[in-house]
Amino acid sequence: MWVRITTGSCIKLTQVTLLYDFIAEPGNNELTVKEGETVTITNQNIGGGWIEAQNSRGEVGLVPEDYIERLIKQTLLSLAALSLPLSSLTFSFSCLFQASNGNDPWSVWNADPSGGSNNNWASNPEGTQTGKTAADPWSAASQGHPQAYQGPERSGPSLHNLFFSFFSLSRFPGFSKSGPELYLLCKQLAKGKEKLPIYMGEVGPVWSYPESQLDCVVADPKKGSKMYGLKSYIEYQIVPSTTNRPVNHRYKHFDWLYERLLDKFGSAIPIPSLPDKQVTGRFEEEFIKMRMERLQGWMTRMCRHPIVSCSEVFQTFLTYKDEKDWKTGKRKAEKDETVGVMIFSTIEPEGPDLDPVEVEQKCEQFSRFTKSMDDGVKEILTVGHEHWKRCTGPLPKEYQRIGKAFQNLSSVFTSSGYQGESTLTDAMTAAGKTYEEIAQLVAEQPRKDLHFLMETNNEYKGLLGCFPDTIGVHKAAIDKVKEGDKLVATSKITPQDKVTMAKRVSIMSYALQAEMNHFHSNRIYDYNRVMQLYLEEQVKFYETIAEKLRQAHSQFTTM
Amino acid sequence: MWVRITTGSCIKLTQVTLLYDFIAEPGNNELTVKEGETVTITNQNIGGGWIEAQNSRGEVGLVPEDYIERLIKQTLLSLAALSLPLSSLTFSFSCLFQASNGNDPWSVWNADPSGGSNNNWASNPEGTQTGKTAADPWSAASQGHPQAYQGPERSGPSLHNLFFSFFSLSRFPGFSKSGPELYLLCKQLAKGKEKLPIYMGEVGPVWSYPESQLDCVVADPKKGSKMYGLKSYIEYQIVPSTTNRPVNHRYKHFDWLYERLLDKFGSAIPIPSLPDKQVTGRFEEEFIKMRMERLQGWMTRMCRHPIVSCSEVFQTFLTYKDEKDWKTGKRKAEKDETVGVMIFSTIEPEGPDLDPVEVEQKCEQFSRFTKSMDDGVKEILTVGHEHWKRCTGPLPKEYQRIGKAFQNLSSVFTSSGYQGESTLTDAMTAAGKTYEEIAQLVAEQPRKDLHFLMETNNEYKGLLGCFPDTIGVHKAAIDKVKEGDKLVATSKITPQDKVTMAKRVSIMSYALQAEMNHFHSNRIYDYNRVMQLYLEEQVKFYETIAEKLRQAHSQFTTM
Repeated sequence: MWVRITTGSCIKLTQVTLLYDFIAEPGNNELTVKEGETVTITNQNIGGGWIEAQNSRGEVGLVPEDYIERLIKQTLLSLAALSLPLSSLTFSFSCLFQASNGNDPWSVWNADPSGGSNNNWASNPEGTQTGKTAADPWSAASQGHPQAYQGPERSGPSLHNLFFSFFSLSRFPGFSKSGPELYLLCKQLAKGKEKLPIYMGEVGPVWSYPESQLDCVVADPKKGSKMYGLKSYIEYQIVPSTTNRPVNHRYKHFDWLYERLLDKFGSAIPIPSLPDKQVTGRFEEEFIKMRMERLQGWMTRMCRHPIVSCSEVFQTFLTYKDEKDWKTGKRKAEKDETVGVMIFSTIEPEGPDLDPVEVEQKCEQFSRFTKSMDDGVKEILTVGHEHWKRCTGPLPKEYQRIGKAFQNLSSVFTSSGYQGESTLTDAMTAAGKTYEEIAQLVAEQPRKDLHFLMETNNEYKGLLGCFPDTIGVHKAAIDKVKEGDKLVATSKITPQDKVTMAKRVSIMSYALQAEMNHFHSNRIYDYNRVMQLYLEEQVKFYETIAEKLRQAHSQFTTM
Repeated sequence: MWVRITTGSCIKLTQVTLLYDFIAEPGNNELTVKEGETVTITNQNIGGGWIEAQNSRGEVGLVPEDYIERLIKQTLLSLAALSLPLSSLTFSFSCLFQASNGNDPWSVWNADPSGGSNNNWASNPEGTQTGKTAADPWSAASQGHPQAYQGPERSGPSLHNLFFSFFSLSRFPGFSKSGPELYLLCKQLAKGKEKLPIYMGEVGPVWSYPESQLDCVVADPKKGSKMYGLKSYIEYQIVPSTTNRPVNHRYKHFDWLYERLLDKFGSAIPIPSLPDKQVTGRFEEEFIKMRMERLQGWMTRMCRHPIVSCSEVFQTFLTYKDEKDWKTGKRKAEKDETVGVMIFSTIEPEGPDLDPVEVEQKCEQFSRFTKSMDDGVKEILTVGHEHWKRCTGPLPKEYQRIGKAFQNLSSVFTSSGYQGESTLTDAMTAAGKTYEEIAQLVAEQPRKDLHFLMETNNEYKGLLGCFPDTIGVHKAAIDKVKEGDKLVATSKITPQDKVTMAKRVSIMSYALQAEMNHFHSNRIYDYNRVMQLYLEEQVKFYETIAEKLRQAHSQFTTM
């Protein structure tokens, strides 16, 4: 995204630091780099999400640009945190929008010139500004809500949006604290068409759920290639239950979707990370299968979420008709400003305002619960991992040795030259073979049951890892409200602001409760399902062994 | 046996070396000694099979006299090997017979004065010699077969018997080589009433089996004490299937029986050793139970052997009527001279003489088989031992951790404050408990199945360990026959002797074949049995687990 940096005033980065390890695919012109390693850019115009870099040893090769993408955001972020003059942010931000206009039509930050005509500006009298769009996000911000930037707060929310998008992307600590004020104190809220109602259900506040639950199938991974075969990639086919029409996406598009969802919902809804960006042997069967399975899991979870699944960006991802349609949708999503804490401005609970004390209690309760569930889940993962190792390592080896020992003794017996012991020796050989079969069953079993137990808990570990941020925003909001009187006394805010804050923190709490209730019902469903599956397979496993041994036993003659 | 050494001409041993470790039973006035340690005798007249000794650190306590018993035999043996004048052997041997006349009525070497009247001399015209009996075994030897000691060979066989009994007791190497000659070249064989016929069965030469197989139950171990409670011991009750009348014996009597059987049959029939003489915590439940179980196993094997079970010494052990009866039987058995290779003189095969080549082939075949079976058995013991450790160590720990992890997560869920998840949490707790139960099942299982597999193979390991000696005697005999011509040429033996040797080695081979066939049929029976038992228990084990898991599974609500 930082490549093709044109503006002279822009922070020129020719040296960049890597955010993750990247292991080169042999024969793919790639360069292996370590997280934290600094490389020099030798060619920014490769495109396809790749840049050419040279490491300290002088080796040159391709590296995914994503791997340094966040670097700049953080740089900006720190500048922002240091509250540098807005100008400095503006121009560096403009770099952001100019950046990475590569040859890849899917490029996240691609500012497609032809796109100008059919974007959300078309409906806008000042659509003529389109030209500068890419160069000036602020105007874009102001277009949406012309009335939103009067008075001293002018640059408030959109500056926040900018920051928050960095915050939520980078999970920058200190930042989440200052997040919620922008919503709590924002004079007038956007009057967007988005409305997220919250109803009172049996269990308390609940999101409004669609009549039929969206679902989708991620399947049929295909290896594609670009740049005359120089670069190859994997494309997955996603078929939503609504249209039943397949759309294709690469991992990086899932990643784009993730970033969008995180930007938009992150402070109200924990958006689980995508499966690891692990790229070793990107084209190995095993890896592709595993990644697909996990993308499926991620998509299923997103589909199950009433807010996420109904969101425009998610629908676009699943149902775009053609590339043009997709690009438009992408650009629109990228320009969406109801992101960060501003999402709360779209939430409309049907219940009465909550007492700040209750709000805090709920928040504390959820915080405690998610923390202890995180511990519980990690314990299962640890134990499960050890068990996996034992079941695939020493245990089958041992059953194999037992099987061999029986067979060896049997063949010794065969050599006795004594008449009529073939029944015994055959039976002993069969018993020995049975234990070798058991060895194999034992070694294969984890894939059949433990695997899903681990995957589910792994998914929950990821999900639970998002709660601290989500809850952090609420804690920050609660703290702000607590300061209310002091702020009024020192006339930092008006008494009216204080009332507004209390009202808005109540809304935030409704959202948190709705989200927790959603989390709980899913959790109950998921753990019922995975435990059933695990135990079902375990029963089969032990029954199979018992049956094999019963057969082996039957071969011995009773005397 | 060496205590109360009266004869001045006798080798006076006040310092003795220990043959085995002995760990003192606390509060039992005992002295812990190490194998090879030298102690000084402080009191020889304790009796009860005990002597009082003082170690180098000046500590004084009781030590089992058995633990130094063999010391003298070996001393004699070495003297013999060095072919010292017979006189020196005679007097030290006389010590042997005078020795250890303690207060213990069971004392192995007890020369009971009243016993004189009802021993095998009663039937002897020169019964008047009884008085000197204990002092002069040679007369005893000569009494049996007055005609056996004419000419230069006079002292041959009985000297052999004396030596061989040492050989077979001490498994003195070098000695087994010279063993068989005494039988092969012995001019005239004893005309005892003992006859051990060998018939031709379907499988080849077989012993003559009794119509009904003898069996016995070793049970009801009782702690007895002597010397006004100073010494305590364990007495086992043995009930033979024939009389159904219980007799009591202490371990040391089993040991005495073992020595007798080894003396008498050792060169034709492998006599397995008794369970370890381990004396640590002699009175601990566990140990007594285990020793009893193994004594039962040993007795059962002896009962199953057609020759051993019918032997007079074995019958005496099982059916003596009273102490007097027992003592007489003991003395008689101890005076039996058809021991060592001379047992072959009682064997009468119905088949024709075997060709020496065939004899050698058979011998080689059995040697190979027993060796490779020994390897096979040891492999099972090794693997089984490892498996035992895993099943009682890390594996149950792991199932326990899995169980705990499920239960912990379940209790976290209970704390969610979300309504209606009790079905899930109850089910998860149950599942967790199930894995804790499985942990216990796993840990207890080895005692139920692996135990018998190990015990049986352990027994066979012991049995197979006896074959090298048994087969060694045959190899030595075969070698002797091979030298036949050379010996004739150098007129070491007459041509008639050579014919006799060939005939007798053929008899030995019949015996070996009969024994091997006995071994094989028992082996087939034993391994069928133990494998059935093992697999039966294994099936139960896996079925129980499957059933428990099925129940746990049923508690989860299907969605």
